[in-house]
Amino acid sequence: MEIIREISILRARIKEARSQGKLVGFVPTMGCLHKGHLALLDKARAENGLTILSIFVNPLQFGIGEDYEEYPRHLESDAVQVKKAGGHIIFAPTVKEMYPQGHATYVDVERLTAVLCGASRPHHFRGVTTVVAKLFNIVNPDQAYFGQKDAQQALVIQRMVRDLNMNVLVHIIPTVREADGLAMSSRNSYLSPAERSAASILYKSLSQASEEIQGGQRDAAVIQAFIVEKISLELLANIDYVAVVDTEEIRPVKEISGRTLIALAVRFGKTRLIDNIIVEV
Amino acid sequence: MEIIREISILRARIKEARSQGKLVGFVPTMGCLHKGHLALLDKARAENGLTILSIFVNPLQFGIGEDYEEYPRHLESDAVQVKKAGGHIIFAPTVKEMYPQGHATYVDVERLTAVLCGASRPHHFRGVTTVVAKLFNIVNPDQAYFGQKDAQQALVIQRMVRDLNMNVLVHIIPTVREADGLAMSSRNSYLSPAERSAASILYKSLSQASEEIQGGQRDAAVIQAFIVEKISLELLANIDYVAVVDTEEIRPVKEISGRTLIALAVRFGKTRLIDNIIVEV
Repeated sequence: MEIIREISILRARIKEARSQGKLVGFVPTMGCLHKGHLALLDKARAENGLTILSIFVNPLQFGIGEDYEEYPRHLESDAVQVKKAGGHIIFAPTVKEMYPQGHATYVDVERLTAVLCGASRPHHFRGVTTVVAKLFNIVNPDQAYFGQKDAQQALVIQRMVRDLNMNVLVHIIPTVREADGLAMSSRNSYLSPAERSAASILYKSLSQASEEIQGGQRDAAVIQAFIVEKISLELLANIDYVAVVDTEEIRPVKEISGRTLIALAVRFGKTRLIDNIIVEV
Repeated sequence: MEIIREISILRARIKEARSQGKLVGFVPTMGCLHKGHLALLDKARAENGLTILSIFVNPLQFGIGEDYEEYPRHLESDAVQVKKAGGHIIFAPTVKEMYPQGHATYVDVERLTAVLCGASRPHHFRGVTTVVAKLFNIVNPDQAYFGQKDAQQALVIQRMVRDLNMNVLVHIIPTVREADGLAMSSRNSYLSPAERSAASILYKSLSQASEEIQGGQRDAAVIQAFIVEKISLELLANIDYVAVVDTEEIRPVKEISGRTLIALAVRFGKTRLIDNIIVEV
């Protein structure tokens, strides 16, 4: 396992692996790896000859007053995990390597980024799509792996790949959860013990909503209100949004039919957590 | 020489050529080919094993009320020229092939696109960078060829390639001119005989400005006023802009030093023509 910080060196390694006929699998992350990331890495390892995981806390996707500075950075322990999991390369560029002076180019996915998390984080997805487009051009992977936990991000990246004819197969991997159902997230480390305990309400409410739908409920407004009510019982929870949307244009649906995303963002103290389920009826 | 309309077929052809170790050269155009385009094609032919020229009148780069509908389309005579020049493939996709329903993704180069042509054509460069990003991802060329006539476009595309780490070498090829100096352009066909004759003032004024600079003039405002005055003597000419700018950020300069772009856009009747020179002092 090798840690590479420069684009030119990474490109040389990838060229070498390609000349040996290897497929290139890519897992872009912001580091502080948890079991969710490792599930992506395992899949990439199983399906490719060369597995690259990037660790880059991307300033472009943080808003003013967000947690760019505090975001946890643990390259050493991350490297131990990647090595143990059989990853071949960690690409950990500096901000200057990724955004040299004069950077002026941005990739924007419209419509899909104006809602849900995009509504409260206006430039977030532009930062995500720009850095992912750059990383895809640097790594030129055959396959890339993202987590379902960031459901809107997954849909936005899939749309970017389709719209810009990027030659990469994007895989979305199921959310990995703690024993009580809380979705794995690097931001869980921000939670106080009381907040951590309260946060289990997110997946509980989604699971109960799923049961309501299995039981025949199809009215999106009823399901949304059901989740809002459950979460509101938790005093430490502060709802940003609960939304029932389609999985193409991320538009609110009235009736639940076909593939439907139920997504939420909730604050516990200063920490904003997201979670979601996809139901198919 | 083959005309291909579908992305998947083009990709298969390119894959085949690559497996034979051929370099891929790419010339993106809107068709209605003239000697300027053929100069790009010749260079691409000389430097690559497979030469692809795309013909696509890109609706995204035309504003409301601009000439998208009237823009000349002559695929048959274009094909004769490409064949004669030894090009291997014309890629001529439909609008639907390039922008299937639901298209939402745009590539934006900020700052550099807010000035000169970008000031009077607000979404033009966003359309250019989006379609070129798409075409680059479809063709995956080793080298791509653009004309110096569209100076701002050339700088914007070079910046996009650098900022997004696109793996393509961009070549900018000198402007090809008519006997009287008028830059070759598909839009020259819009000109009435009187306008055509008057349009030679553009390159004349640029050439005379260049002589002034060779003669020692370094004041950008003086050079700009000099060109404006020359062109204003031509009654059919209606100046959009005359600008003296640096070739990195396309910012107006006070003093001419190093590499400097002198660019202009002038209307003759309904037809908007552009031209430019680069001086190095």
